[in-house]
Amino acid sequence: MATVTLRAFVCSFSIIFLLKPNGFSSQQFSITFQQPTDCGVESYFDISSLSCVKCGPNQVNSKSGLACECQAGFRVLVSNGASITCQQCPDANQGVTQDGYGCIRCPGSVGDNGKCQCPKGSVLVEREWNGNPLNEAQCEACNATEPAFSAPDTTGNRCVRCEDSFINSSQSCVCGTSNIQAGGMCFPPNSLPASVASNVIFGQLALSVTSLWFSSFMYSSAAACLLFSNRTACQSLGNMCVMNMHSSSTINNDACGLYNTVYRAAQGSSQDISYWRTNLPWLYYGDQLGLASRILQNEPLPVGFSFKGTQKNTNIELQAAVYSVRGEFLRWESVGGGNLQLCPDTPTRQQSAFMFGTAYKQSCVLSVSELLNGYPEPVFYDVFLVIQKPQEDKRLLAVPLLNINQQFNGQFTNQGSSMNNWYLTRRLMLVDTLSGREKSLSSSPKVIRVASNIKIGFQLVTNTQKGQVYPPLMTVTYSDILVTDPTTQTVTVTFSLEYTMDQEEARVKTDIALGVLGGVAVVHSLLKTASWKRRIASPLIDLQTIMKFLVFYAGDLANVFFIITVGTGLYWLIFFKAQLFVSVLLPLPAQEERFVVYVGCAFALKTVQFLHKLFVQLSVDIFFIDWERPRSKASKHVEGSGEAKSQASPVSIWRTYFVANEWNEIQTIRKINPTFQVIAVLFFLEVVGFSNLALRDPSSDLHPSPEAYTPPYSLILRYGVASAMWLCIGLMQITFFKVIHERFVEDKIRQFVDLCSISNISVLLLSHRCFGYYIHGRSVHGHADTNMDEMNTNLKREAENLCGQRGLLPNSDTQTFQISITNRLRAQYDRIIEPINWRSGPSRLVDASANPCEQSTKAYHTMNRFLGSVIDHAHREMDYIVKDKLLFERIIGMEFIEPLDKSIFYNDDSHSFADVLFYGNEAVLLIFDTLFFCVVDLGSQNFILAAVLTYLQQLVFRLIRNGMGRRNLASKTLVDKRFLI
Amino acid sequence: MATVTLRAFVCSFSIIFLLKPNGFSSQQFSITFQQPTDCGVESYFDISSLSCVKCGPNQVNSKSGLACECQAGFRVLVSNGASITCQQCPDANQGVTQDGYGCIRCPGSVGDNGKCQCPKGSVLVEREWNGNPLNEAQCEACNATEPAFSAPDTTGNRCVRCEDSFINSSQSCVCGTSNIQAGGMCFPPNSLPASVASNVIFGQLALSVTSLWFSSFMYSSAAACLLFSNRTACQSLGNMCVMNMHSSSTINNDACGLYNTVYRAAQGSSQDISYWRTNLPWLYYGDQLGLASRILQNEPLPVGFSFKGTQKNTNIELQAAVYSVRGEFLRWESVGGGNLQLCPDTPTRQQSAFMFGTAYKQSCVLSVSELLNGYPEPVFYDVFLVIQKPQEDKRLLAVPLLNINQQFNGQFTNQGSSMNNWYLTRRLMLVDTLSGREKSLSSSPKVIRVASNIKIGFQLVTNTQKGQVYPPLMTVTYSDILVTDPTTQTVTVTFSLEYTMDQEEARVKTDIALGVLGGVAVVHSLLKTASWKRRIASPLIDLQTIMKFLVFYAGDLANVFFIITVGTGLYWLIFFKAQLFVSVLLPLPAQEERFVVYVGCAFALKTVQFLHKLFVQLSVDIFFIDWERPRSKASKHVEGSGEAKSQASPVSIWRTYFVANEWNEIQTIRKINPTFQVIAVLFFLEVVGFSNLALRDPSSDLHPSPEAYTPPYSLILRYGVASAMWLCIGLMQITFFKVIHERFVEDKIRQFVDLCSISNISVLLLSHRCFGYYIHGRSVHGHADTNMDEMNTNLKREAENLCGQRGLLPNSDTQTFQISITNRLRAQYDRIIEPINWRSGPSRLVDASANPCEQSTKAYHTMNRFLGSVIDHAHREMDYIVKDKLLFERIIGMEFIEPLDKSIFYNDDSHSFADVLFYGNEAVLLIFDTLFFCVVDLGSQNFILAAVLTYLQQLVFRLIRNGMGRRNLASKTLVDKRFLI
Repeated sequence: MATVTLRAFVCSFSIIFLLKPNGFSSQQFSITFQQPTDCGVESYFDISSLSCVKCGPNQVNSKSGLACECQAGFRVLVSNGASITCQQCPDANQGVTQDGYGCIRCPGSVGDNGKCQCPKGSVLVEREWNGNPLNEAQCEACNATEPAFSAPDTTGNRCVRCEDSFINSSQSCVCGTSNIQAGGMCFPPNSLPASVASNVIFGQLALSVTSLWFSSFMYSSAAACLLFSNRTACQSLGNMCVMNMHSSSTINNDACGLYNTVYRAAQGSSQDISYWRTNLPWLYYGDQLGLASRILQNEPLPVGFSFKGTQKNTNIELQAAVYSVRGEFLRWESVGGGNLQLCPDTPTRQQSAFMFGTAYKQSCVLSVSELLNGYPEPVFYDVFLVIQKPQEDKRLLAVPLLNINQQFNGQFTNQGSSMNNWYLTRRLMLVDTLSGREKSLSSSPKVIRVASNIKIGFQLVTNTQKGQVYPPLMTVTYSDILVTDPTTQTVTVTFSLEYTMDQEEARVKTDIALGVLGGVAVVHSLLKTASWKRRIASPLIDLQTIMKFLVFYAGDLANVFFIITVGTGLYWLIFFKAQLFVSVLLPLPAQEERFVVYVGCAFALKTVQFLHKLFVQLSVDIFFIDWERPRSKASKHVEGSGEAKSQASPVSIWRTYFVANEWNEIQTIRKINPTFQVIAVLFFLEVVGFSNLALRDPSSDLHPSPEAYTPPYSLILRYGVASAMWLCIGLMQITFFKVIHERFVEDKIRQFVDLCSISNISVLLLSHRCFGYYIHGRSVHGHADTNMDEMNTNLKREAENLCGQRGLLPNSDTQTFQISITNRLRAQYDRIIEPINWRSGPSRLVDASANPCEQSTKAYHTMNRFLGSVIDHAHREMDYIVKDKLLFERIIGMEFIEPLDKSIFYNDDSHSFADVLFYGNEAVLLIFDTLFFCVVDLGSQNFILAAVLTYLQQLVFRLIRNGMGRRNLASKTLVDKRFLI
Repeated sequence: MATVTLRAFVCSFSIIFLLKPNGFSSQQFSITFQQPTDCGVESYFDISSLSCVKCGPNQVNSKSGLACECQAGFRVLVSNGASITCQQCPDANQGVTQDGYGCIRCPGSVGDNGKCQCPKGSVLVEREWNGNPLNEAQCEACNATEPAFSAPDTTGNRCVRCEDSFINSSQSCVCGTSNIQAGGMCFPPNSLPASVASNVIFGQLALSVTSLWFSSFMYSSAAACLLFSNRTACQSLGNMCVMNMHSSSTINNDACGLYNTVYRAAQGSSQDISYWRTNLPWLYYGDQLGLASRILQNEPLPVGFSFKGTQKNTNIELQAAVYSVRGEFLRWESVGGGNLQLCPDTPTRQQSAFMFGTAYKQSCVLSVSELLNGYPEPVFYDVFLVIQKPQEDKRLLAVPLLNINQQFNGQFTNQGSSMNNWYLTRRLMLVDTLSGREKSLSSSPKVIRVASNIKIGFQLVTNTQKGQVYPPLMTVTYSDILVTDPTTQTVTVTFSLEYTMDQEEARVKTDIALGVLGGVAVVHSLLKTASWKRRIASPLIDLQTIMKFLVFYAGDLANVFFIITVGTGLYWLIFFKAQLFVSVLLPLPAQEERFVVYVGCAFALKTVQFLHKLFVQLSVDIFFIDWERPRSKASKHVEGSGEAKSQASPVSIWRTYFVANEWNEIQTIRKINPTFQVIAVLFFLEVVGFSNLALRDPSSDLHPSPEAYTPPYSLILRYGVASAMWLCIGLMQITFFKVIHERFVEDKIRQFVDLCSISNISVLLLSHRCFGYYIHGRSVHGHADTNMDEMNTNLKREAENLCGQRGLLPNSDTQTFQISITNRLRAQYDRIIEPINWRSGPSRLVDASANPCEQSTKAYHTMNRFLGSVIDHAHREMDYIVKDKLLFERIIGMEFIEPLDKSIFYNDDSHSFADVLFYGNEAVLLIFDTLFFCVVDLGSQNFILAAVLTYLQQLVFRLIRNGMGRRNLASKTLVDKRFLI
């Protein structure tokens, strides 16, 4: 029903469209683009059809171009709203009336616009008071003297009272000859120097521009301010001084010079502030030496900032008194919604600038033409910080301004870093397109000036616990731009907030820690070197010793740097992010350089240590001692002799292969899963969002809104978060592996020791010349080279405790030992192993006839027999004793007794033979990985890249360790490389 | 020197500050916050000191609050700029002059402001023409009739010519009684219905507001438009219709009703567009059924869009004719810099909206108070699309508007999805705070209306190759907000651009591909099931068969879905991102649902297949056949008997341990490094930046600027990029492993086969009941259980080709076979293995006295002997033949010959036994990983999370496969689990 009604209604005006029922071309709905300026003089722009339409006869388009009006000398005859008819005034002497509808005889001449003209000081009268038109217009001269004091108004139609200054100076509306007329006002003479410098000097361009604004209004503003205490004029004069960059010179009477002249003459101060004179704007703080530092660092603000909790106060509230260039007070404005921030952005992001502790920096490139359109006149800001104590009135603290461009006699006064030489000022402007206009105030300026860098800096009071800060300082830098091609010219503008604190104390503390720990590191490295010397049984201090010391020292120093950098990172992370009342603020990016250098040192030194460890591990001496003895005699026919000889049935080598293969496999196992480590760290940093803790803001939000402002990252915090995360997850993994995995799932190291025992094979490892490890693997069953039945029986008997214990000593379980061997034993070892090493030596040393392979198997058997007999105490001159290591020996990692006569086997239940594997060096590897990850991240600020590269680094070093380790194993144990798979 | 001068200069005004040389309190520079409104009536706000200062006697503050003026009845006696002195006018009858400086006798009464007042129609005269003051002011009545036609001007000081409409209607400046005076104009009667509905109905709130704006100006606008063809009035009337949501009703004469009345009366059309009447704004398209679709989809734009190349054209240029609410034409505006986008943002980001092909959506929450301040009056936009053909004039195509809120007689007309029922309109407004004002135009409105959702939609011409699109459509939805608390009320506004094309064809093509490939999958699965039936040697079609078929079908269907989804993803990626002229546009997010369902299907089905494969692999039968025979008799003393018995020396089990251990280790090796895969994909997507290819914009930039607008991601493109990346890197890894790694570094599978041969151990794998694999490992040297000398000699002899070949057949090298075994062989196998399986069976079946361990070793030896003899052709009834597989058999993966009498050994050089390992199922694993990664990403839109979870998934399944595989290996081969390390 409703649809029917609808159709019925719309049908009423639809019939006309039925002519074209099908097919609408898009051309049909398109029009030609025309603008009011496109229409010629005789057309107007029809706002309804958006096209130019021809005017009627004798008509021209009006000023706006949107309608027609009669051409000069024609009057409107008929007007019906849409169109007019024009008619020429009959008489030559007639002009058109002001309203355009009539013709009237003119008393004087007829102007170009076809209307009557009157001389200056006269008004044109066309109607009587009651509106009746006169036959002839009259020109009435306004009476300038008492009591009329009148002059024509702006329209030129009435005489009205003239400006007070004329009356005050001349007792008339005509400025007397002895007086000075300037800027539409009249001043008595000699009150101010007559010659003023109305040119503006653009320092960066070394260009002086004769400014129309200055030449028009500078003298009058100064005079009106001085003589009539005209507040608007005073502000206007102040504004000119600001446009002049607060600069002055003793040579000319420039804007600031005039301001100072008025300042000296002024009486009384505003608001009890001595630098602020009544009726004058406050532009300068005083000029005493060191005044700036007293103002900025003498007394903190009465209100403290707090990041969290019920008393949370991170809001920086700034209020600005805004003045127009003419000196009018426009309004109080809350600084925020983009008024000082020239770069456009969302309000949320712009507002983040005023959250205490958020390092804010907004930078963008603006087009000069946009600036010209957007800022036809500068506005001026007197910025105050709002101090709102509970239950008190709002108070405003004047924020001092440091104008970097300020000059005195052509010298920059504020560009030095010494605060004592600064001259603080007040009043800020953003874009000045006015002072550079030379010919007319509506023409395009020759030069514009833009506040290209505005920085608000807060400094924390040293050792405050209440979040107290000193008064903020605004630093502004202006850029001068010579306007040549506004559409292509650009200017980069920056707005930033910076929070600083005195970092000297932190620096000193770091230095002390570095010194102390560095000393400890020296001692530790010396001890290690001494231990190493003992273990290689060399008493000489030679170049190698010094090199070794340096390598040890590199490792220890790396740890020192690592501890200090992680400590620093965590310190800032915890104290900055978690503080209730603000007591610390982050170091500025420039102050982070030292830290980055420390991290670099730690990484470089750790790399040296890591590579050294790797090299040592890849050259360790290892031998598998097979305890198996042949069971029976096998009959073997010896070729050639024809004689049957009884010979031992061979002992299978496969157990040795098995053990060697397992040793090969445990070379790179670690106490953590390194890939899981990388992935987990990446997960927590990037998915869970811990990386957001490294942002330079007080928030601890892991998932900030994507619309919110993203402050830059702090390198120290990034390092702190990443290293903490890495170490935490690493330690958790180690704990998990130690407590859960190795106990309940699989302990590869223990498995290896068990395997040795079951396979009846001992392992001798010599990491140094006279120091190493021994894994006792003599089978408690006598034989291991047997079939499945016996193996199963053996395993079962052992499980049921039906056989002896596995230890080296009777009734002991200790299978693993650290060993200090005598020089004699080592010499014998070397003598046996010698033929094998020939393989890789120069060929001329080898007996050409001897088969190297046979030699090496021979050496293998000799070695096997020799080491077996040593362990069995069969060599009296190479005997050994077994003892426990002293606690102190364990702690400092050095043996006190030199094995002169007998070798010493130290019980070692903690499987410290893993020190020659990755497994026993987890700390070094973990720290190296951490540092690698962090260094890549510091360089790229990209955790994903760091994770990828860390993974690759782990992969490469694992491959190297595995491949080279396998080669070393094959060459030292004489097990063919093909069985190490 | 310069510093000295500087000091000297500033010293001139520094002396006064020397009183306080030390210590500046921040309190010293703080002031109390005061505003002009804070000062009472008797104070003014001193713009210099920013504080309230008391006015002099008899003074009150001025309207602006920034100065004092004399109170009513007082004149200014002295004014020196800063302050004035006031004096009461002596006579009671005297008023203060207009300029405030004099007292004058009034002809009539003295007003409340202390000045003379004249009756209506009269002007106040205080001075003569020449400015001389009169003693007594005069009230002159303006002559309203011919020839004066005068009335007081707005100031009331002069008589000027009155409005044309008065003169035209009444021949006087007084509107005649029969005429109607409205809106400051005078109209002849009966031209329009006298009663007009000036209330605005806010549909969403079901609220009717008597709008002051409508009641003041609706009648007059309509009448001036109709009678005087006043163009501004016509626009104003049109604006009211727009403010009324283009809605009309047949009951009342509302704004749109009046518009239509004028429309019907109007003659001629503007710009040859029939819906656009002369002098009237163009508000409606016609109302024929189906007109909208003819307008929107009949003819494409004459200019095509192109993403790249020399003819690149992605710029959507919109121009809007902007009108004020009063109907004035303001300007032509280029739509862009935020004029239709209510949400504030950077210009760069806002401008991205108008880049063709960039899915743009900007949404934000605006505060009502901001809207009230920012939009005191609505402005109206007539939006045109600029069509700029080369060497032609700019033409503008009217963009039709679909106003969702449009009603007719209370019924919404445009909310249906059927384009045929739509009524297209023109003219858009953003925020209307005016029509809701009830009492005064400066009061706060009761209701405001906001264009909360503006969408510009482009539709691509089907099958275009030239980037042709149909005319765009703007859809606007308005929200009505009842203003109760402006500071807390908010409104969400959205601005978006949407690009669509007809997706029907793509859908049909996908369906066809799905149908065809699905059919192929059925056939393939049937074949696989048949092959499986043959291999388990079961002829029955039972439930298990059907389940198996379903599982196979799941795998094949998963591949089909995978192919289709990857194909679709790549299609869109390549065709959308790489196209020169626009020929395809991405599906909308709503249209992506089907695709996501497909991906989900692929993943779910692939998971079924993967789990099935895993289960099959974990239950495979395996046995290691040891060929080693004892060498000699060992003398062994049998306990208890006292008799020495000659017994075979045991064959060492360690070779079997070694081989089993290696088999255990190769279970989960793959043709790729899965972790490297994850890390590499993550690297390319997130660090190199391929993920940016998935953005819904035409750009192929891998590193878009952080300041640029980031469009939303397209799920299809994300899937396309991720899966392509995953597959590419996977294939590259496989190639690398096949071509480089396995050839030059290490081939684990070949190593295993070699190991079998060297260790004299064969492997029998039965993946199905009667099908499996055989690795022939009989040593060519007869013995492998020997010492190092002999092993080395053997290896050397083989290297020098001094011994036979390793193959099963004489003089062949083929060691690996696929085997189809007879039922009889399998039955025998099962019979031997039975006692072992008892171990895990219920205990009551076991002979309590029998040692299970002994039983299993016995079974091991029996099995070893039995299988050895079978391979040696020792069992006539279980013999086998060796043959090559037919090519077709290889292709379809099914054996044609059933092994009824003899088992069949098929030569298999491609090591297909790896099919029971991860190694042989790389395709399934790779696709499963790919789908897992993509599904997580589709769910979370986070590649990092997807990578982390994929890594964990790989880790978990590897652990499961390793752990369970190890258990299966131990139970099937009888090798103790402790040796599988």
